Amino acid sequence: MINKLVSKIQKTNAPVVVGLDPMLAYVPEHITKAAFAEYGETLEGAAEAIWQYNKGIVDNIYDLIPAVKPQIAMYEQFGIPGMIAFKKTVDYCKEKDLVVIGDVKRGDIGSTSAAYAVGHLGKVQVGSKAYAGFDEDFATVNPYLGSDGIKPFIDVCKENNKGIFVLVKTSNPSSGEFQDRLIDGRPLYEHVGEQVAKWGEEHMGDSYSYVGAVVGATYPEMGKVLRKVMPKSFILVPGYGAQGGTAEGLRPYFNEDGLGAIVNSSRGIIAAYKQEKYSQFGPENYADASRQATIDMIEDIASIF
Amino acid sequence: MINKLVSKIQKTNAPVVVGLDPMLAYVPEHITKAAFAEYGETLEGAAEAIWQYNKGIVDNIYDLIPAVKPQIAMYEQFGIPGMIAFKKTVDYCKEKDLVVIGDVKRGDIGSTSAAYAVGHLGKVQVGSKAYAGFDEDFATVNPYLGSDGIKPFIDVCKENNKGIFVLVKTSNPSSGEFQDRLIDGRPLYEHVGEQVAKWGEEHMGDSYSYVGAVVGATYPEMGKVLRKVMPKSFILVPGYGAQGGTAEGLRPYFNEDGLGAIVNSSRGIIAAYKQEKYSQFGPENYADASRQATIDMIEDIASIF
Repeated sequence: MINKLVSKIQKTNAPVVVGLDPMLAYVPEHITKAAFAEYGETLEGAAEAIWQYNKGIVDNIYDLIPAVKPQIAMYEQFGIPGMIAFKKTVDYCKEKDLVVIGDVKRGDIGSTSAAYAVGHLGKVQVGSKAYAGFDEDFATVNPYLGSDGIKPFIDVCKENNKGIFVLVKTSNPSSGEFQDRLIDGRPLYEHVGEQVAKWGEEHMGDSYSYVGAVVGATYPEMGKVLRKVMPKSFILVPGYGAQGGTAEGLRPYFNEDGLGAIVNSSRGIIAAYKQEKYSQFGPENYADASRQATIDMIEDIASIF
Repeated sequence: MINKLVSKIQKTNAPVVVGLDPMLAYVPEHITKAAFAEYGETLEGAAEAIWQYNKGIVDNIYDLIPAVKPQIAMYEQFGIPGMIAFKKTVDYCKEKDLVVIGDVKRGDIGSTSAAYAVGHLGKVQVGSKAYAGFDEDFATVNPYLGSDGIKPFIDVCKENNKGIFVLVKTSNPSSGEFQDRLIDGRPLYEHVGEQVAKWGEEHMGDSYSYVGAVVGATYPEMGKVLRKVMPKSFILVPGYGAQGGTAEGLRPYFNEDGLGAIVNSSRGIIAAYKQEKYSQFGPENYADASRQATIDMIEDIASIF
């Protein structure tokens, strides 16, 4: 799957992933109206609205980009109907041949971590049959519990040709509270990055590992260091655009080969029609606004090479 | 909700929580057989099996204990049908007046953390209506992302009289990889514990905070230190029994008032019938074995006071 991600990035010339993090407040009125008309103002109605909203965006951008990253929290908040909308979104994106990174930030230990891995990346055994629960291509994973939490994911990834991105340095303002604290003279995120590099050796693709890292666009100096600490790990970079990360700041996240990083934008793409820059599209044509914003983002990032 | 937890612990005289972490391998054959007969060897069949298994256990132990802790990964691995079984389990335990701690170990930032909080502990707005998605009483939360990840949970907890348990020192062998590393001469888990105490001040119950901590039973020396660092935080203690934690080692997790900790056992209770000690019950009477194991655990823990 890491090989597929690399080849799709090369084909599209776009180291870009679009975050499908729908909030009801982003969904244009004509969509919520239709969904509520069918299902009422219910969890089912909300789930239908975000699914239709996603579908419109995916239909308009799937040819431009290699991957999408649905944020499961935005679906999970709507309970079971929300989880169904998540699954529909994952399945639909895979039909469109997009690589799907499940932004699930799961993390536990032993058999519990294995259960998360199986649910999101593998197949669960039921009697003589085996089924995929959510079936993303990659999942994001939290490292706080150490190797006991990560290795079960790697085992499942090996069996299923899937991958993970481990949180190393997150994009938020308070990420430094623990991640930046110095241990033997170096910040915690560097120690986590070193482990990511080690874990990654256990499951290598052709040029990159199936074990990647999440490093926020908002900390380019740290990105530079982490790039060297984990040369074979793909870096998933959130925080571009809405969170303040700039294209110029992204260069250090990439290797000399122009690969090694994939930059996420969520709100900046999916709610583009709400920005002044794209307001001429109007809510009815929100998906066209998303397409234009995607093209602009790809150009912006291409400008750094 | 922390007040309810405290009063239920006092009433049952049992600082004990039973982990509802069903694995298909634990479920007695008569239950899986019936479930597969109705739904086939499908995700629905597996979900029905774990739900019936849970129900049998809860019916037999609900009067003995204050709380249960369903581990969502064990449900999530069965996809949507598994999530439905999770929800049914949560709802059923609440009907039985048990406090439900959702062991979800979620953690993200800002609006994403808020979405998790709303989905598990609050209500989501859909037009003019508001709905609870999963509606546990407490949730476990991962601290790696710092205050940006925790505060949205606290906000939702305040609105809904709910609480969280933040991972501080986990019970697994490799938990020390990052958690034990020294920062300014003290391990990371102590720094996290200090933050838990601070976060906890924002949402206090009568005698304890709505912001608790997870500290594994397998590290009693660390439990002793953390008890002092977070005097007002309830400690959720996994790792008793199957993972090697002993009753003797649990004393430091409690305050002088005999409160302040709640000890989890999962496998040791729910799969008790598989232990030699309870094998006389047989698979048909697995829930009676769980009841006896619960009584034994309560006695074992009472012995330390």
